[in-house]
Amino acid sequence: MSMRVESDSMGTINVPADKYYGAQTARSLANFDIGGERMPQEVITAFGILKKAAAIANHKLGLMDEQTRDLIVAAADEVIAGRLVDHFPLVVWQTGSGTQSNMNVNEVISNRAIEMAGGEMGSKKPVHPNDHVNMSQSSNDTYPTAMHIAAVEAIENYLAPRIETLRATLAAKSDEFSDIVKIGRTHLQDATPLTLGQEMSGWVAQLELAMQAIRASLPQLKELALGGTAVGTGLNAHPDYGRTVAAEIATLTGQDFITAPNKFAVMAGHDAFVGSSGALKQLAAALMKIANDVRWLASGPRSGLGELIIPENEPGSSIMPGKVNPTQSEAMTMVAVQVMGNDAAIGFAASQGNFELNVFKPVIAYNFLQSVRLLADAAKSFNDHCAAGIVPNRERINEHLNNSLMLVTALNRRIGYDNAAKIAKNAHKKGTTLRESAIELGLLTGEEFDAEVRPEEMTGPKAR
Amino acid sequence: MSMRVESDSMGTINVPADKYYGAQTARSLANFDIGGERMPQEVITAFGILKKAAAIANHKLGLMDEQTRDLIVAAADEVIAGRLVDHFPLVVWQTGSGTQSNMNVNEVISNRAIEMAGGEMGSKKPVHPNDHVNMSQSSNDTYPTAMHIAAVEAIENYLAPRIETLRATLAAKSDEFSDIVKIGRTHLQDATPLTLGQEMSGWVAQLELAMQAIRASLPQLKELALGGTAVGTGLNAHPDYGRTVAAEIATLTGQDFITAPNKFAVMAGHDAFVGSSGALKQLAAALMKIANDVRWLASGPRSGLGELIIPENEPGSSIMPGKVNPTQSEAMTMVAVQVMGNDAAIGFAASQGNFELNVFKPVIAYNFLQSVRLLADAAKSFNDHCAAGIVPNRERINEHLNNSLMLVTALNRRIGYDNAAKIAKNAHKKGTTLRESAIELGLLTGEEFDAEVRPEEMTGPKAR
Amino acid sequence: MSMRVESDSMGTINVPADKYYGAQTARSLANFDIGGERMPQEVITAFGILKKAAAIANHKLGLMDEQTRDLIVAAADEVIAGRLVDHFPLVVWQTGSGTQSNMNVNEVISNRAIEMAGGEMGSKKPVHPNDHVNMSQSSNDTYPTAMHIAAVEAIENYLAPRIETLRATLAAKSDEFSDIVKIGRTHLQDATPLTLGQEMSGWVAQLELAMQAIRASLPQLKELALGGTAVGTGLNAHPDYGRTVAAEIATLTGQDFITAPNKFAVMAGHDAFVGSSGALKQLAAALMKIANDVRWLASGPRSGLGELIIPENEPGSSIMPGKVNPTQSEAMTMVAVQVMGNDAAIGFAASQGNFELNVFKPVIAYNFLQSVRLLADAAKSFNDHCAAGIVPNRERINEHLNNSLMLVTALNRRIGYDNAAKIAKNAHKKGTTLRESAIELGLLTGEEFDAEVRPEEMTGPKAR
Amino acid sequence: MSMRVESDSMGTINVPADKYYGAQTARSLANFDIGGERMPQEVITAFGILKKAAAIANHKLGLMDEQTRDLIVAAADEVIAGRLVDHFPLVVWQTGSGTQSNMNVNEVISNRAIEMAGGEMGSKKPVHPNDHVNMSQSSNDTYPTAMHIAAVEAIENYLAPRIETLRATLAAKSDEFSDIVKIGRTHLQDATPLTLGQEMSGWVAQLELAMQAIRASLPQLKELALGGTAVGTGLNAHPDYGRTVAAEIATLTGQDFITAPNKFAVMAGHDAFVGSSGALKQLAAALMKIANDVRWLASGPRSGLGELIIPENEPGSSIMPGKVNPTQSEAMTMVAVQVMGNDAAIGFAASQGNFELNVFKPVIAYNFLQSVRLLADAAKSFNDHCAAGIVPNRERINEHLNNSLMLVTALNRRIGYDNAAKIAKNAHKKGTTLRESAIELGLLTGEEFDAEVRPEEMTGPKAR
Repeated sequence: MSMRVESDSMGTINVPADKYYGAQTARSLANFDIGGERMPQEVITAFGILKKAAAIANHKLGLMDEQTRDLIVAAADEVIAGRLVDHFPLVVWQTGSGTQSNMNVNEVISNRAIEMAGGEMGSKKPVHPNDHVNMSQSSNDTYPTAMHIAAVEAIENYLAPRIETLRATLAAKSDEFSDIVKIGRTHLQDATPLTLGQEMSGWVAQLELAMQAIRASLPQLKELALGGTAVGTGLNAHPDYGRTVAAEIATLTGQDFITAPNKFAVMAGHDAFVGSSGALKQLAAALMKIANDVRWLASGPRSGLGELIIPENEPGSSIMPGKVNPTQSEAMTMVAVQVMGNDAAIGFAASQGNFELNVFKPVIAYNFLQSVRLLADAAKSFNDHCAAGIVPNRERINEHLNNSLMLVTALNRRIGYDNAAKIAKNAHKKGTTLRESAIELGLLTGEEFDAEVRPEEMTGPKAR
Repeated sequence: MSMRVESDSMGTINVPADKYYGAQTARSLANFDIGGERMPQEVITAFGILKKAAAIANHKLGLMDEQTRDLIVAAADEVIAGRLVDHFPLVVWQTGSGTQSNMNVNEVISNRAIEMAGGEMGSKKPVHPNDHVNMSQSSNDTYPTAMHIAAVEAIENYLAPRIETLRATLAAKSDEFSDIVKIGRTHLQDATPLTLGQEMSGWVAQLELAMQAIRASLPQLKELALGGTAVGTGLNAHPDYGRTVAAEIATLTGQDFITAPNKFAVMAGHDAFVGSSGALKQLAAALMKIANDVRWLASGPRSGLGELIIPENEPGSSIMPGKVNPTQSEAMTMVAVQVMGNDAAIGFAASQGNFELNVFKPVIAYNFLQSVRLLADAAKSFNDHCAAGIVPNRERINEHLNNSLMLVTALNRRIGYDNAAKIAKNAHKKGTTLRESAIELGLLTGEEFDAEVRPEEMTGPKAR
Repeated sequence: MSMRVESDSMGTINVPADKYYGAQTARSLANFDIGGERMPQEVITAFGILKKAAAIANHKLGLMDEQTRDLIVAAADEVIAGRLVDHFPLVVWQTGSGTQSNMNVNEVISNRAIEMAGGEMGSKKPVHPNDHVNMSQSSNDTYPTAMHIAAVEAIENYLAPRIETLRATLAAKSDEFSDIVKIGRTHLQDATPLTLGQEMSGWVAQLELAMQAIRASLPQLKELALGGTAVGTGLNAHPDYGRTVAAEIATLTGQDFITAPNKFAVMAGHDAFVGSSGALKQLAAALMKIANDVRWLASGPRSGLGELIIPENEPGSSIMPGKVNPTQSEAMTMVAVQVMGNDAAIGFAASQGNFELNVFKPVIAYNFLQSVRLLADAAKSFNDHCAAGIVPNRERINEHLNNSLMLVTALNRRIGYDNAAKIAKNAHKKGTTLRESAIELGLLTGEEFDAEVRPEEMTGPKAR
Repeated sequence: MSMRVESDSMGTINVPADKYYGAQTARSLANFDIGGERMPQEVITAFGILKKAAAIANHKLGLMDEQTRDLIVAAADEVIAGRLVDHFPLVVWQTGSGTQSNMNVNEVISNRAIEMAGGEMGSKKPVHPNDHVNMSQSSNDTYPTAMHIAAVEAIENYLAPRIETLRATLAAKSDEFSDIVKIGRTHLQDATPLTLGQEMSGWVAQLELAMQAIRASLPQLKELALGGTAVGTGLNAHPDYGRTVAAEIATLTGQDFITAPNKFAVMAGHDAFVGSSGALKQLAAALMKIANDVRWLASGPRSGLGELIIPENEPGSSIMPGKVNPTQSEAMTMVAVQVMGNDAAIGFAASQGNFELNVFKPVIAYNFLQSVRLLADAAKSFNDHCAAGIVPNRERINEHLNNSLMLVTALNRRIGYDNAAKIAKNAHKKGTTLRESAIELGLLTGEEFDAEVRPEEMTGPKAR
């Protein structure tokens, strides 16, 4: 492998000639050979936005010349566009401030900018990784800023639309099936009827509540640490820096980011991720319930509940038809479990700050962004390969409904509680339907029964 | 023990004569001899409010006569006032819908109302536990309603004021100590200075963010299931019941409760508790960080950091003065850990609903309300017995500040980076202060040093 | 309330005259008004054992006279017997070393011993809480020792027999139902058959594996910290003290406790509780699976799986027969969830030791012992009120089995794969049984079908 | 991209011509575009071992001819050797039984074997993915078997040696520093002295206890599901298959794997992973404590504890010497947090089995193996880049020791408790050492003080 020499304050070190990163990235690679989980791509992209905004802000405040700014912006744009992915090899399990990833970005932007300017990589001229790319910044305020940008962008641009699609699919199904009366189930026991549309409306509402919770957590994530520099005081930064750079980031992303009113809290804490991850966990709980309901309702084909038919995406049994494994539900519930585990890690990590810094930043970002990504992807997969294709098994639904003994309550008014109970007990004992039992006992004719027992009238409140 | 006979649909059973509860409570006691954790008092109180509101609403809708309403209201008022605590013996580990606690309340209010009316306990006349106290309700909609009422009341009336007190104490300390310049610490390593006031302002901001997150979760908890009856359809309830009873509950509590737009979601889900518990966990993380900072800053007396002095509440070493164990921090951090565990249980439990009902309701209520109570109590204890009495150890703070090598950066402008580094390295090697080193190296006089190195000017940004 | 004066190194304080506890307990009550969760009774009992053993060991080593030993032993016996419960009012949320509960025990034993000796309570004569009851000890080594004793005793004497009872019940059922062939289910979909006995044997094996895991964790819990005194070095203790007192504790409990080979680890760590709690969580996972299987198999009565019938312990619907809520499963699964939450708290707490002490001891003990207690109680309740009364619904089981399309694989050998698939597809399409389909297609007579399709031969491997 | 056609029971599908995988893998790729977390390499390798052992066992039992066996073995060996990594593209978030990864392995081995035999890929001749590679197996028993093999191998071959190296390093340091007396710390407060060697011996013992716990969990992981086939009954497998194939796996791995006595439990449960993950969490808790102690003891350089000096691996402050960020501790503690989160996911997932199958298998494998890998890698990194280079700062250690007021207890015997306390209080008040205070008060000469106060004699028990 062709190498070139890069240097930092500890001396020189060889780096691959075809990589833009420099000495500090190379040292981190050597010192942290732990796992293979790379710093999430969302964080790298966010750093691109951050460095671009920082350069623009530095120029606006008279701290950086136009040419340097433009070079940094051009290189940062490539980071944002994902064209330099191979130049960010560092793993999550590094320094807890994320310093090494900040330096990785500084080095890559510096060298790419140098290359654009026709300079020599590693020369730090004309764009210096520290003096220019990191100007007015510290790892301690850049990394948390990148975490916040990455989290907000991932939620708004990636998660929210995918959940909305699933919500809309389920809402449409709920409307479509609003006339299908089916048996309700509480404690897994037969209960009074409702419509399939009503049942699904509960799923829709759960998704709406979860997204409402997630959105309610965003304002805290939109507070940016940038401007706090090393310990939150803003030492070595222009007094207007925090405000200016937050405005640039808001412009670049279209999200209403602001500079954090208190920088100490957002560098030493990260509690906002705890609350927001709790909201993601709310979504996971909702999706777990929905995916479980779907697979139970689709259980069978003969010895399960069998009220829903879901798409068959993979080979089931070649000899036995009708056996469709609910694999999308399985992927979804595994994702839900993962999000719960991630949330445990985030809460723990966020509580462990000391004094002016929390040094569990990368593990928080890793778990949070994995949760967002998995929830979004699983929602899309579940939507496309399962929810959109759900059809009711009307025959089975009717069979359950008509077999139900719960409908007997509809007879109280006509024949009295005691006679109604008599019908139910006879039906239970003999394994017949209520209708058959009523006729057998001579308490009602079939026509009378049908006139009284109208499940569709039992799916809502009624003025007495 | 004197006993009386009570009955339910399974037959008769003896209950203690001096207890208001009836047959179903007695059966639950016999069937669920598990642990000793009683249904949280907050839930019982909330049930009192609920039953009172239900009676009023039933009367308003023409379903209940005035006398019955008044008797129920009178008995419910005693439940609310906590005068009947001994009559609610059931544990958390019962049926997962909380049915037995709902029946416990129905039975107690019925018998107490009967007693007030001069009737015979157990006779169910003139106030029937099911027909009257439980009118227009089902366990499936009352228990979640009681959970929501209990949660909102506990947060608004118990937790919020106690956190506010602690916040205010810390804010006052932050103001008071705004002129005390001290060394910053990142990665546990000496960093650039900040004021003690700034450091504490981070704690204040963390508490504010956490309370903001908790408050943002309340709207979901203010949606009530009542009116959904058995499966969420509202069967057997008046069409206006949900709205009417929610309005009564709002009036009784002064909180803006509303009837849930979708009843299926709030009976089968409980995801709102996941999001809200996530916000409580955010508070726990913040309090853990604060309590840890306090105990580390108070560590010593000789071989720790020693920058803060905390109140001595218990006997320390009788022979060794100055050793003050940070016991309030210890209680607080144990509480924070407990809240994290509770949150894990809540997330898991909330995800396990099936179809029209989640049957993990009591375990959710138990953990959520324990979290609220412990956070509130620990905050008050920490405030009264620790935070309010924190005083800075100015001598130690100054010693750390003056010993710090980080201040050398202030000399860059005057003598150049290389000379500044020389001073620092010499000081590090010889274990002297920067000032001593500067003088020894002949680079600055003491007066010049003092003029340049002004830590108080390093605690904020500066226009260059 | 009648009061008496007690004193400690901070001065005097009033305590209730009818309580044996002294000044430090009274201070803790005043300083830690947090929650209501008292120090677990198991810990108090363990402290009784510990103090008794300590006195015996001190006497054996020539450090304590016989009379003092006997007084301490007599008072400690009352603690062990649970006769002094009201004298231990302290909560979990106190100093993280459990010092205050250690002092609570010292004070109660001292005053009760003084009372026995005819002395004056509070005089500390002839039995001094520190000099005698706490002789050769420090809170830092007594509290972890009490934790270990409490944990081992709770597991061996309380949990293990209750799990064994449930295991035996299920094993007997497994044997009893070894001839009942039923449909298997994977992915909630119909699968090849097995016997009900086989299905239940899986539950039995899960319980056995879990208890094996729990037992494998006990050796670590049997290592005692006593002898380490304040920081683990054993300063101020006799060189033989640790070994001697561990032997006494082993004698008193009948458990093979030993003195920890390394005292530093067991005072600053508590990792043993993490591993052991993980084993309790394994049991919780097993019980959750079992309880879920039971309630799903008992779901119905008409629209569920309905293969098992469980005891009806509470009133179900008075009008609708056959609806039996699986309340014991619900209590059990809530307990399982609680144990998972407790485990999260324990892991976090155990990781937070610093230097010579972990100060999250009470929260670890609280969660660990609650897990043990709840698992034991829930297992007993589930056994007595559910498992012991499970009966199969043979009619339903046979219906599922005979309806199953999975049995078609048995025909491959006789009529070839293609014809077998044809039968299954025809049955699936028309909703008939395989037998009906085979006859309809003219591929087999009823007798031939019955001779080939023998589900009972599909429940095990076969030599070809 | 050049494609070829592959087929399964659903029909044909295009796959990349340069990949060995077939139709079912291609369908899974299309249906599960979720996250990017691939099925762990350890599982793929384990599948290689499994398929090799299965072919050998099938041949031994007379079910497979020699040529087919040899082809499968040859292809499986390439899987084991890691040469076919690019042919296993499936993610964790697929069907919960891991069926698709089982088929991926079957397809790759089939096609690679076909290629070796000179056949046409996709022709399924002469080595059929189902009939040959999957012979006597079902996904339902292969995937859990692969999980167990992967877990045991990862622990024994990867984790254990790395933890042993760290343990040995710390044990050597403990020996080396056995004469360095230092101040102890409890509650973060100065306490009685111990040696640095003793302090480190606690870390060593914690690691030993954790590895003991992990090893105690292995027997359960060594029970293999293979032979259970679809639902645990072993239908379609030779009666000797389970035993035979387990013996082959034992031979191939050198680990004492056995066939599970009860197959139902190990296919529907996975509780063994819960217990074992609990043991991994014990290790995480121990490592967190160790890494925290190291960074706190290395805190400074001026305003921290500063008793240890750790290697400087990255550029710190170029101007400020002596500031060494404890980055290895940070990586380690982030890993510990991750393991705790993973454990939460594993416990939840393992509890969610239904009837004959748990369909959370891949998420369990993913989290468990990540925990093992991260703990192992972080231990190695921490060992190589931190622990091995730890040196004591003797000057600072002595300063803390000599400044300590705790040593005053050594004077009790000579001058009495009251005078000793007087010396300590005077020293505390004036900020002097005990020695200075003793001399100032005229209670002891310097020589007398030095003769009495010998910290090295306070680091162990003493016969009185």
